Amino acid sequence: MEWKNFTQLDVYGKLKKAAENPVDIKAELSGPGGAERVRDYKVPMAEGMTYSYAAKQVDEKLLPLLQELADEAELIPKYEALLDGEVINTGEKRLVLHQLTRGQLGKDVIADGVNKREFYTAQQEKAAAFANRVHAGEIVNEKGEKFTTVVQIGIGGSDLGPRALYISLENWAKANGTLLMDAKFISNVDPDDASATLASVDLAHSMFVLVSKSGTTLETLTNEAFVKDALKAEGLDPARHMCAVTSETSPLAGNSDYLEAFFMDDYIGGRYSACSAVGGVILSLAFGPDVFARILSGAAEEDALAKEPCVTKNAAMLDALIGVFERNFLGYGVTAVLPYSQALSRFPAHLQQLDMESNGKSVNRFGEPVDYQTGPVIFGEPGTNGQHSFYQLLHQGTSVVPLQFVGFHESQIGRDVEIRGTVSQQKLNANVAAQIIAFACGKDDENRNKYFAGGRPSSIIAGKQLTPESLGALLAHFENKVMFQGFVWNLNSFDQEGVQLGKVLANRVLAGDMDGALLEYSRLLGIF
Amino acid sequence: MEWKNFTQLDVYGKLKKAAENPVDIKAELSGPGGAERVRDYKVPMAEGMTYSYAAKQVDEKLLPLLQELADEAELIPKYEALLDGEVINTGEKRLVLHQLTRGQLGKDVIADGVNKREFYTAQQEKAAAFANRVHAGEIVNEKGEKFTTVVQIGIGGSDLGPRALYISLENWAKANGTLLMDAKFISNVDPDDASATLASVDLAHSMFVLVSKSGTTLETLTNEAFVKDALKAEGLDPARHMCAVTSETSPLAGNSDYLEAFFMDDYIGGRYSACSAVGGVILSLAFGPDVFARILSGAAEEDALAKEPCVTKNAAMLDALIGVFERNFLGYGVTAVLPYSQALSRFPAHLQQLDMESNGKSVNRFGEPVDYQTGPVIFGEPGTNGQHSFYQLLHQGTSVVPLQFVGFHESQIGRDVEIRGTVSQQKLNANVAAQIIAFACGKDDENRNKYFAGGRPSSIIAGKQLTPESLGALLAHFENKVMFQGFVWNLNSFDQEGVQLGKVLANRVLAGDMDGALLEYSRLLGIF
Repeated sequence: MEWKNFTQLDVYGKLKKAAENPVDIKAELSGPGGAERVRDYKVPMAEGMTYSYAAKQVDEKLLPLLQELADEAELIPKYEALLDGEVINTGEKRLVLHQLTRGQLGKDVIADGVNKREFYTAQQEKAAAFANRVHAGEIVNEKGEKFTTVVQIGIGGSDLGPRALYISLENWAKANGTLLMDAKFISNVDPDDASATLASVDLAHSMFVLVSKSGTTLETLTNEAFVKDALKAEGLDPARHMCAVTSETSPLAGNSDYLEAFFMDDYIGGRYSACSAVGGVILSLAFGPDVFARILSGAAEEDALAKEPCVTKNAAMLDALIGVFERNFLGYGVTAVLPYSQALSRFPAHLQQLDMESNGKSVNRFGEPVDYQTGPVIFGEPGTNGQHSFYQLLHQGTSVVPLQFVGFHESQIGRDVEIRGTVSQQKLNANVAAQIIAFACGKDDENRNKYFAGGRPSSIIAGKQLTPESLGALLAHFENKVMFQGFVWNLNSFDQEGVQLGKVLANRVLAGDMDGALLEYSRLLGIF
Repeated sequence: MEWKNFTQLDVYGKLKKAAENPVDIKAELSGPGGAERVRDYKVPMAEGMTYSYAAKQVDEKLLPLLQELADEAELIPKYEALLDGEVINTGEKRLVLHQLTRGQLGKDVIADGVNKREFYTAQQEKAAAFANRVHAGEIVNEKGEKFTTVVQIGIGGSDLGPRALYISLENWAKANGTLLMDAKFISNVDPDDASATLASVDLAHSMFVLVSKSGTTLETLTNEAFVKDALKAEGLDPARHMCAVTSETSPLAGNSDYLEAFFMDDYIGGRYSACSAVGGVILSLAFGPDVFARILSGAAEEDALAKEPCVTKNAAMLDALIGVFERNFLGYGVTAVLPYSQALSRFPAHLQQLDMESNGKSVNRFGEPVDYQTGPVIFGEPGTNGQHSFYQLLHQGTSVVPLQFVGFHESQIGRDVEIRGTVSQQKLNANVAAQIIAFACGKDDENRNKYFAGGRPSSIIAGKQLTPESLGALLAHFENKVMFQGFVWNLNSFDQEGVQLGKVLANRVLAGDMDGALLEYSRLLGIF
């Protein structure tokens, strides 16, 4: 197995040449073969979902080149090496094991003297047992009353992923009788974030989950102090209201300030940690351990599918390769994620971190500068809201932005209303179908202001309903897509050195150790 | 006054040439003159706020060229023409009057036979009187009880702007005793959006504000039906729980299904309507009419400042011109909006619509294709959250993304906690200062993985506190920035033809009138 820069691959030049005559999706989709193309250009995913790429700029000439890229870049062997526990995170010299939280797809992985699958399973069981005891009223507050709310204190990956998953399933859980505790999140060091969240909960019946791998994250410890002050002010004992998710070596572990400590390790980065104890504790408390297990099961199914070497049978890999082609050869620098599901309202924010923090890099996995574009900017909002907002630019702006739609046949709650012969869920999905065609095929008009050039590519992941399983599969799909793109770009997708400098400088400001422009900006912001 | 394409201006070539040797902000800011530059490169804004552009790629050679651009493109005369009621929205042949809701800065504007300033003021007074009667318990529910919650039903501009403003001031209002009613929003046609919102409110004590200019917006009418069904199911009379914001000619006007109708007109587009009755009714109900008037007052002050012809004294114009220089000559296609204030968590979503829907266009105001880039993609999340998420790409990715920071000296609630000698608000602002310098100046490191190239431009708007006045000023700043950019690009920033095609195709799907690829996508989405 070789780690080569993208430009060192033989197929690089072939792809570049292919991009000189990009596929005309308007012609492909509006022509007589359009229907057939939509029927053919799709890949089955886990949980009966489908990845459709009929509105992407690929065809029977390009797909073999993408296969050649997958093969020459050794994407599947690299994925297998990762699953087998190789040191894929070269910068920090670490294994990359988030998939292992969901199932054993490779060899047994032994690290720190333990079988890591057993370690993750043990943490899941510990979280499940803890949640069950909270739900059963065995772990209670000072007055012997049940906890009704769980509040996560964490930032970045300790916040965005678990929060996106919680919001995704909150209504589903209500409709299915499994919303056992309400969940809230405190992340920002802005004191108004903690104040507002604390004001919105019943402190006496709230359990707090403090998430920090190192036990030293400034924002998180500051917010912990904020919470402890608030608990004490109401005469409550913080040690009866808090548990911790942290590393075994952190000051938070084995500490009587916490009811329990659940462990994470160095082999799962924050943005990949939703399936570890980082997501597991709060989601098991909110929805029950069974629902969390179902999320993992959907993700595991998708992880297994990602081992398929044929690009047209591997949704995550194909999605990744099309994205690379768009980024490096078609020159598209941004991707929009557009879920037609209000429940996925914060899923784009999670993907934004997942993708941009993983592949927003300028050096390869050996620390050498690369001479090609890497990860794109990711943004998105749920449809149909976005249609009445930024879609104007997506349709008629001077830049082309590839689109990633997500949609489901059924709503989560099931309550609906019929207007003009159709229900809202039909209207929602009619809009997805319409947008895909509008973007791809455009519309001629003599009035150029009403003219749509078309040729704007999109893909869609469609499923029956957003359930724990399909949500897990979605999560894994994007994790695996980002991983495959990192392999093609020869990046280390699992470190984040780019976040360090800001921390160092902020600490200098807080220590009063600054001069020049930094001092002037500190004055402008009224810090001292 | 002449409307010329950007490339027709004499200064275009000069700017292009200037961009060949872009300003090295790393050298400018890290050098001995760095502190002085931060002190000098700022513009006073309304409400004591400051626009700082010291970390932008401008200098004493470029600023005169930007002045030349402002003058040659006749930005101030065009703004004055707009204020005076000229038909600036050429596509729809309409005046553009959102600033007039906040004050009279130009001549009297007479349209539809009325003085428009008087029209807007009358609607504000009507909203204030209505809100006062609701607060006083003169308008009550079936049981004679006070309304406690207001729910806006609207989408796009009828949702994002009012929602962003409400969230921006919710905690401020709590802290200042002016949160008179809780506000909620229903926008998406996804039936789960309405279901979840309705489940979260006490229907018997909820007032609904239906916002649709035409009275025909599909999402809004569908959600209205949803709400009416829910009210009836609880034995409540919808006509006692709903008011409407609409045009005088819409079917919602003078209709006994609504307690009251407040009027908007054709001269204020959705994304510019937060200061009209679209924002005025819900914000007057939530916070009281005085707070809404204070928002307008801050906006009016900023509108007045935007009439200043000197670029270094006009924050909105300078912000606009720097943005144009970055977009057209430095090749940056995306701008990130990064408020260090949790209260502004949805402000980027509003700016995303404001900017991308206004200037995401490929034809000029006469409907002729333009041969230059127009509006960028806008995205953002509040700091410090973003730092632990997508900032990796912003610092070390292969694309440069200009940044727009916003920060305030004081929090809104005022509750804080001291850890390691500083409070959270200081930590929050230390991070802003640190990030600006980190992005601009970077850091050398032999380990290329820990190397930061720097040279990544940002600006910041800093203020004392996020209050109704400063929020209004912020809103107006960005509206005016977008307007000035539209003038430079010779666009009509006030229509949105790009949203039409999707609607037409969605209606075809719902009518069953589709074939080919559209039919196949409809099947994939399980619509029928």
